[in-house]
Amino acid sequence: MRLKIIFNILGKLLIFVGLAMLLPLAVALFYKEVDGLSFLVSMGLTISVGKIMQKFSYSQQEIRHREGFAIVTLGWILISLFGAIPFMLSGVFDNFVNAFFESVSGFTTTGATVILSLESLSHSILFWRSLSHWLGGMGIIVMSIAILPELAGSMQLFKAEAPGPVNDRLRPRIKETAKTLWVIYILLTILQMILLFFNDMSFFDAVLHSFGTMSTGGFSSRTLSVKAYDSLIIEGIMVFFMFLAGTNFTLHYQALRGNIKALFNNKEFRFYLFLVTTAILLITVNLRLQVYKGWLQSIRYAAFQTLSIISTAGFATVDYDIWPPFARGILLVLMFIGGCAGSTAGGIKIIRIYALMKKGFQELYKLIHPRAVTSLKIGNRAVSEEVSTSILGFFFLYIIVFVVAAITLTSFGIDLISSISAVAATLGNIGPGLGLIGPLNTYVPLPIVGKLLLSFCMLLGRLEIYTVLVFMLAGFWRR
Amino acid sequence: MRLKIIFNILGKLLIFVGLAMLLPLAVALFYKEVDGLSFLVSMGLTISVGKIMQKFSYSQQEIRHREGFAIVTLGWILISLFGAIPFMLSGVFDNFVNAFFESVSGFTTTGATVILSLESLSHSILFWRSLSHWLGGMGIIVMSIAILPELAGSMQLFKAEAPGPVNDRLRPRIKETAKTLWVIYILLTILQMILLFFNDMSFFDAVLHSFGTMSTGGFSSRTLSVKAYDSLIIEGIMVFFMFLAGTNFTLHYQALRGNIKALFNNKEFRFYLFLVTTAILLITVNLRLQVYKGWLQSIRYAAFQTLSIISTAGFATVDYDIWPPFARGILLVLMFIGGCAGSTAGGIKIIRIYALMKKGFQELYKLIHPRAVTSLKIGNRAVSEEVSTSILGFFFLYIIVFVVAAITLTSFGIDLISSISAVAATLGNIGPGLGLIGPLNTYVPLPIVGKLLLSFCMLLGRLEIYTVLVFMLAGFWRR
Repeated sequence: MRLKIIFNILGKLLIFVGLAMLLPLAVALFYKEVDGLSFLVSMGLTISVGKIMQKFSYSQQEIRHREGFAIVTLGWILISLFGAIPFMLSGVFDNFVNAFFESVSGFTTTGATVILSLESLSHSILFWRSLSHWLGGMGIIVMSIAILPELAGSMQLFKAEAPGPVNDRLRPRIKETAKTLWVIYILLTILQMILLFFNDMSFFDAVLHSFGTMSTGGFSSRTLSVKAYDSLIIEGIMVFFMFLAGTNFTLHYQALRGNIKALFNNKEFRFYLFLVTTAILLITVNLRLQVYKGWLQSIRYAAFQTLSIISTAGFATVDYDIWPPFARGILLVLMFIGGCAGSTAGGIKIIRIYALMKKGFQELYKLIHPRAVTSLKIGNRAVSEEVSTSILGFFFLYIIVFVVAAITLTSFGIDLISSISAVAATLGNIGPGLGLIGPLNTYVPLPIVGKLLLSFCMLLGRLEIYTVLVFMLAGFWRR
Repeated sequence: MRLKIIFNILGKLLIFVGLAMLLPLAVALFYKEVDGLSFLVSMGLTISVGKIMQKFSYSQQEIRHREGFAIVTLGWILISLFGAIPFMLSGVFDNFVNAFFESVSGFTTTGATVILSLESLSHSILFWRSLSHWLGGMGIIVMSIAILPELAGSMQLFKAEAPGPVNDRLRPRIKETAKTLWVIYILLTILQMILLFFNDMSFFDAVLHSFGTMSTGGFSSRTLSVKAYDSLIIEGIMVFFMFLAGTNFTLHYQALRGNIKALFNNKEFRFYLFLVTTAILLITVNLRLQVYKGWLQSIRYAAFQTLSIISTAGFATVDYDIWPPFARGILLVLMFIGGCAGSTAGGIKIIRIYALMKKGFQELYKLIHPRAVTSLKIGNRAVSEEVSTSILGFFFLYIIVFVVAAITLTSFGIDLISSISAVAATLGNIGPGLGLIGPLNTYVPLPIVGKLLLSFCMLLGRLEIYTVLVFMLAGFWRR
């Protein structure tokens, strides 16, 4: 572990985040808000620390993969810490844990909030929240091509069958690939902005909601989230873009190059489509029979909430916490599943669920035909035993982290469903959950320790658990 | 698949169960109860069908392993069907699904009931309920040595380090091993009976509660379960025997032969001990701080409920559904874990959880030291890659079955916690859950389809999922 190289990159990262604060500063100047000062000070502080870190370190082209884990974990923590400073300086919070929670929630594209009324915030602060989502989303794209390949061959899966810009020999092409995917990310964000703006959303709100959608973050500028607009067309646009944000970005690249077939040949994408339509269908019928009077209303709410949760964005157009247990139960399950690998979505990821299901059937098949030679295939690709074990291991770790965190939350007296859904919603980077932390509520009522625990869950989930755990384990530092 | 051989064994099984009905018949005669007639008729019917099945089949020494799966699955269903007849004839239920539910719950040693007041039942019916537990427990002992070895090498784990009567070349020694373990089972049951009887429990109740304890079933003769006796010493005896019932029986064999060291050298047993003491400790502190005024009262309730649920017996001395979320959450987690392999307990089993944890750490270790050659060890035994994959697969299947069943239950409008715990409690063969089906409630309010679903869950859980699924899969019949 060469700390000086790690520090060098972390320093660069801080300088980048510091420079990004120019944007909310510009927003403050435009709206003539006093919060501009907070951003000026925060920017100075962040860039200075970044510069100092660079001074005492050196740059190196080649990074070892264990150093990569350290950079990603420390990087996300560091930018969340510095990203919290503007919240403190502008007086949004008087407790740093709350500011940190909001900032982690932003950069991990979770969207869980500890702010009771968004309407009381300045434009620049609202902008900074949503910008943190969007920057976090960019970070995830790099991470998924630079770090995930190291996670016990999971890259073999993440690439799936998409013969996109992601190539077998990735290392030398990381920069190139990241740039291509960033262009797609930026293009889709701009396209959504334009569509929202031309459908009666203010430009400011259009920018914020596009940031929140493509990053699958979910911070809104309204306390009531997207429910505040009560517009079928706005919801339709957001449903469409949430769906896109939950899709593997290399498939978008394929589609943009005219290869639509690649999209529908992709097993993960097809399973994603299947899960989305099934969930919408089931919830629609349930809502129509037990809650709403019309089919249109039922399908409208069902579609938005389903896409919002499976893509792990976490916007809301209705208080789904008052829905019947069946609809709520399905949403809870979707929180665990999450979107496709190679997207900005969180959760276990659809490709893993798909691989696990195939593996389960394979185990049963082996019992029936003990002498048959079987191999796990996804599309035309054989998945090695090592990779499938690693996915099974990931699933187990995910459940263990979930159970331990949920039980810890209940120790603060928080009811079971709220605890369960709070951990599911932060570990899966969704945002709102059920009960106490339902879509119309916030994470304000939780105790300080609970907020720290959930901040940790957001990081764990965002960095695919392994990254953080490997970093934390003592053995990491030795040898 | 040689149906005639399967029918032969199923016929034998029915004749055995028919003969077992002599016991409740004797009870009816002793107490001069009219229900004796029901047992006479049921006995005649059961034995007749058994005889007919034998007439059209033939016996064979050697059974193929796929036939073993069929025998176990069909066997448990068949005895549950015939075991339900006395309930119908004696008018306990007017709906066969309820009678079947009660009977499956008996033979799978679950202990979930659809009877509102046990005090209104005759002695013979109460006896039959508990006897079905005890016979089910005997069945599980045979199954765990005759069928489980076939389940993708899981036997390698189930034996763990215990160099007991279970040997590497099992097939020729199944009968012998089964007999040894049955003797232990019977001895422990009698010992508990005597202890309960000499501590102010009526002989009848002592018999029933011993049946329910050693089989980890949990049917009581009182609607209030063990709470009805309100006796510290009775609870103490039951806690001790529930603990024993959740332990691998080959370890009892070792201990009876004087090899106490084998017990404490066994990794699974040590982990079991660790889980039990940790759970009791945490729940005691939680109860003392938030519910009860005394430490003794807190530890008394905590110990009984912890052992009752981890051993999957399901007796109760208190309505733990009114406990704080933390204590209830821990109990919910214990429902999934269950007891040791090779015991009569249900659940995922402690050895599997232990192996999964080791595997999880190993995966992390591999990420840190990619070139290190690692192998999973439990005690002094190396666990093959195949076995650990099979355990991971089992865990995933268990969770999938749980999720699908729980969501299906919510579709009947049953709230989330009740649905979740109902499936956890039937799949894990515990009995009572939380909420609607808490320890002082019954499964009566559930709709018919829900009861059938949960009956299926009891079977799935009891037969380690794989057995039933393999049997159900179409491919099973082909080739």
